[in-house]
Order: sequence, then C-alpha cells, then structure tokens
Amino acid sequence: VSHDAIARPSASQPIAVDAHGGDHAPDAVIAGAAAAVRDGIPVILVGDEGALRPRLPSRVHLPIRHASEQVGDDESASHAARRKRDSSMRRAAELVRDGAAAAAVSCGNTGAMLATAVITLGLLEGVDRPAIATAVPRKDGGRLVLLDSGANVDCRPELLACFASLGSAYAEALGTARPRVGVLANGTERSKGNAQARAALELIEAGSVDCVGFVEPTGALEGQCDVLVCDGFVGNVLVKGLEGAVDVGFTLFRQELLRYPSARLGAWLVQRAIRRVWRRVAWDEYGGGLLLGARGVVVIGHGRSNPGAVRAAIGLAARAASGSLVPTVERRLAER
Amino acid sequence: VSHDAIARPSASQPIAVDAHGGDHAPDAVIAGAAAAVRDGIPVILVGDEGALRPRLPSRVHLPIRHASEQVGDDESASHAARRKRDSSMRRAAELVRDGAAAAAVSCGNTGAMLATAVITLGLLEGVDRPAIATAVPRKDGGRLVLLDSGANVDCRPELLACFASLGSAYAEALGTARPRVGVLANGTERSKGNAQARAALELIEAGSVDCVGFVEPTGALEGQCDVLVCDGFVGNVLVKGLEGAVDVGFTLFRQELLRYPSARLGAWLVQRAIRRVWRRVAWDEYGGGLLLGARGVVVIGHGRSNPGAVRAAIGLAARAASGSLVPTVERRLAER
Repeated sequence: VSHDAIARPSASQPIAVDAHGGDHAPDAVIAGAAAAVRDGIPVILVGDEGALRPRLPSRVHLPIRHASEQVGDDESASHAARRKRDSSMRRAAELVRDGAAAAAVSCGNTGAMLATAVITLGLLEGVDRPAIATAVPRKDGGRLVLLDSGANVDCRPELLACFASLGSAYAEALGTARPRVGVLANGTERSKGNAQARAALELIEAGSVDCVGFVEPTGALEGQCDVLVCDGFVGNVLVKGLEGAVDVGFTLFRQELLRYPSARLGAWLVQRAIRRVWRRVAWDEYGGGLLLGARGVVVIGHGRSNPGAVRAAIGLAARAASGSLVPTVERRLAER
Repeated sequence: VSHDAIARPSASQPIAVDAHGGDHAPDAVIAGAAAAVRDGIPVILVGDEGALRPRLPSRVHLPIRHASEQVGDDESASHAARRKRDSSMRRAAELVRDGAAAAAVSCGNTGAMLATAVITLGLLEGVDRPAIATAVPRKDGGRLVLLDSGANVDCRPELLACFASLGSAYAEALGTARPRVGVLANGTERSKGNAQARAALELIEAGSVDCVGFVEPTGALEGQCDVLVCDGFVGNVLVKGLEGAVDVGFTLFRQELLRYPSARLGAWLVQRAIRRVWRRVAWDEYGGGLLLGARGVVVIGHGRSNPGAVRAAIGLAARAASGSLVPTVERRLAER
C-alpha cells in the first residue's frame, strides 16, 4: 500500500461520530456532538436518520450520514465487522477511508469497532495488531500515553515492541519531542518484570525509540516516562484501577464534606478547585482510547459515556487528526 | 506437619518488628513501633541493640531482641534468607516460629522477608507458593483483599486458585462471613480475561470458595467482591496504580487550593475532611501486605514507610493474629 493511499485529514474535515454507540446512545452522543460543534469541531453524525433527525438540537449544524444497521454490545466483533455492511460503525470508518472525515469516533462495542477499523481502513505496514492508547493525567500536569489499554489480552513480547513504536509516534503527534518509553513493571530493576516484560524490554531497547527501562505505575504517574507499554489485559486493568481509585477518593471526600456544617461551607469555597481537579482526572474527560496502527484516526470512547465524555472523545479525535497522527506513526514504524 | 505445630498467638503476645527494614530505618520503625505500643499493641524490636538502645523514646516499653546482621535492599533474597542466620528479619520470624511473638513485621527487602518466612516458618499444607495480600479501601467503606500483590510474577492458573483459598480465608479472619471471591479481569463476561484468568476462573469455580466470576477493578472498588485474585505482576502493578492515582488526585487538589484566597479559606475549613479521606485511601495507611500461606503471621510493609505506615503495619499484624489468621487459612485450605 503506497503512502499516498492514506487519507490526509485537514482541519476543516469533520469527525464522523457513530450515533448508536454507548449505553446512553443516541441522546448522549448527540449532546456531546453538539458540544463539540460549539467547540469549533465539525461533526457528521452517522446513524439512523429517521431516529436521529427529530432529536437534533436546533441552531447547531449536525449533518447526518444515514446507516440502517446498529452493532449491539454483546455482538460478536468479527460478525459485526464483516456482515453488518450498513452499520453506523462501518459507515463512520468508511467516511475516514474515503477522505470525507478526519477521524471516526464510537462509544459502542470496542471489539467490533476495532475489527471494523482494521477491515475498513487496513493496518499500517509493520503492524501485526492495532493497540488502544489511553492518555492518563500525570502528577506533573502532563499526560501519560498508556498502551495497549485493551485491544490484545495475550501478547507476545514482539507485540509489545510494536506498541512501543506506536505509542512513541502517538506521543510525538500530540506534541512531545522525543517521547520517553517505559515498559510497565513491578519495579525498576532489570531483575523485575514478568517473562513477557523482560523479553519486551530487550526488544524495545534494541529498537529506535527512547527507552527508559522498566517503570512502575507510581513512577509513570510522577512523569518518569511519556509512553507506558504493556499488554491489553494489564493495561485495561490498570486504566480501570486508576478510574476506580479516583472514584473512591472523590466519593469518600464528598461524604466527608457533608458531615460538618463548617466542611459544607468549605466545600462551597473549594468547589471550583474540586471541579478543576475532576476535569483533569475523571475518566469521562480522558476522551477514551485511540486506536493505533490503523490507516486512519479512530477513537473508541467509554461505553458509559455521558455527553461530556463524547465531547472529549471527539476533541481527542480532532487533535490526533490535526497532529498528523497516521503519517507520524507510519514514519516511526519505518524507522524501527 | 501436625496442626498443633502452629504457634497459636494470643492477644498478649507482642509483634516482632524488624528495626532495620525500610528506607527510613531504624528511626521511622522505632517511632512507628512506639506509636503502636501507645495504641495498646506490645512490640519487640529486633535488631542491633547497641544502635537501637540510644534511639529509644523514654516512657515507652520497647524491649529489644538483639540481631547482629541486617539485610540490604539489593541483596539476593535466597542468599539473605539462607546465609544471614542472625539477621533482624530472621530473628523476627524465629520469634513467631517459637511462639514468642504473635506476628513479624518488616519494611525491608520484600523477597528476602518472603524467603526468610518460608524457610523459618514453613508453608501450610497445600500451599505451593505464598502470596502477598493487600487490603485496599473500597468506595462502600469496606476493604478489598487483593492478592497476589507481588510475591509471584509468573503464575500458573493453579496458583491463582490457591490464592483464592488464601484470600478467602484471610477475609474471613478479618471478619467477612462468606467472602465473595472475584478473578481480576478486563470485563465481567466469561469471554473476557486472558488465558491465565480464564483457566483460573474454571478452577476456582470448581473449588469451595464463593466465586463471583470475573471482576473489573472499577467493580471491585465499588464492592462487587471481597477478595480479588490475580498474579503478582498484575496485582503489584494494580496496587501501585491505585497509590499513584490517589497521589495524583491529592497533588492536583492541593495545587488548586492554593490558587485563590477563597479556596485557601475553604481548604482550612475542609482540612479535617481531607485528612479523614487521606487516612482511608493513602498507601501509608494500608499497613502494607500480609504474607499468606506461611505457618505464621508476617506483614511486609512498604520500603518507604514513615512512622505512620510502620504503625499501620503493626496494627494489621495484630488484627491478623488476633483473628486467628493461620488456623483459619489452614482450615480453608483443607476444605478445597
């Protein structure tokens, strides 16, 4: 496949959004898409025009690309990707393939969107399996690119080395000059890690990315690396652990604030601070995961996305597209 | 080995504390031990009497069991456990073996303490490898027993099934009537999990613990299970992720509170609430990990333990001992 075959997204191109993906679709998707349009990002909604049209807000430009089918949450990924040729997911991915959209966003069935993206857009040269990258807030205010956060549960070390290149390219596309890549482990010494991590570390150190060795989650969140590589089982568990910890902390804090009148007054005074922190650490502000390795920009949002999460996912897709994600990833892979 | 061979700890027996374990030893250990004594828990400090004696606080009863050797952080675990026969770790474990202490606590080299405990105390019938269990604060105010949180990085599914029994018995000893055991995974459907988790789930379901299937970290922190089983690589990474997320949240919140005068006043009013939440979620309040599967109670504290963390580790050891941890674990293992 020649380099020219890649659709080059421009800032003026819209983001194709699967209107039927996620637990709160289509209403949360429509509301999130409308918010993104107000942010200045053009959007095409993809889905059942008859169902969507009456729900559209007035005074927001939200064109619809009709698709007659929808993919269910418990549907087989390969069946959905291969057979449902007129699904909202498939049509969204096709808009990217055909250069009519800069990126596709879905909060639906992750496996199905992944398979659909691979079938419709194809994989970049040198990529065996795509990975999902999640941007996690760090203590120093930066963002950690964590991958694979859920696409591939059992991985050979070679796959982790591929993720290192993909993640490094993604961090570059998002503006980090020479991303430091860490291999997720239970300690920083070379004797740490499991068999998979130790083998992956050797492969990654022999490659072209800037590898800083094993990094623990605590160290990664403190800013010891820009990209953290692991398999999709561990990555998914880690991302959900971070989300859960934030949720526990905020829930307990809210309970404590209601215990005393003085704390309630204090809560009123610190509410802006709480909101600002929440906006930086809450899962629904991450924008979900970015599919890396496909010949186009695809964002997979959380299934439980509310309008804010959909808006964040669309924002992430727009940033990745305008940062020339796909050409950067392709160049990085060629350097390996 | 007969059942009677197990030293039965009583409430009046002291906790043996390795005075030379941890980054801030011996001062942080002495201060934490003194705090535990003030909490009503008798303690024997184990270590170099000449070095410790002048540092002891007055008016606190802290007897010393002399040990001439210390184990370094980067020392080989098996070398330390086998050769250093007069180390503070070894002598602390021997006090437990000989029935002179209810439990041993060390914040030193984890691998060395683990190997020392296995050599000195022996393993319970049916245990192939010991596991480290960590009690993690849940959203519903309860505690989640997570294991293995670091002892065994590459595990066969059979080992995870053993951890399920160990963790269930531990939760029982801490007061949960019929602990619900979950297998850590990236989703709750049976099709989720990696090969290891799927095989372990089948084995655990065929056993005697109350298995609730695959549980995600988010669900576990919400209270979907009392015990969460995984291998020591994943568990260690997850625990460190939770610690890191809490640290990120509190750090960002502190920064935000300093931005505006009104927030600074509010911060003063909510400081008690913040302190109470911190006490429930901070890593230094967990008390570290409990070694399960050995014929005695052993707590492995954080290497970076401050006096509060040492005190919490001693408290955890005392609770586990008074909850008849070892006999409960032994009974549970016999039921498998």
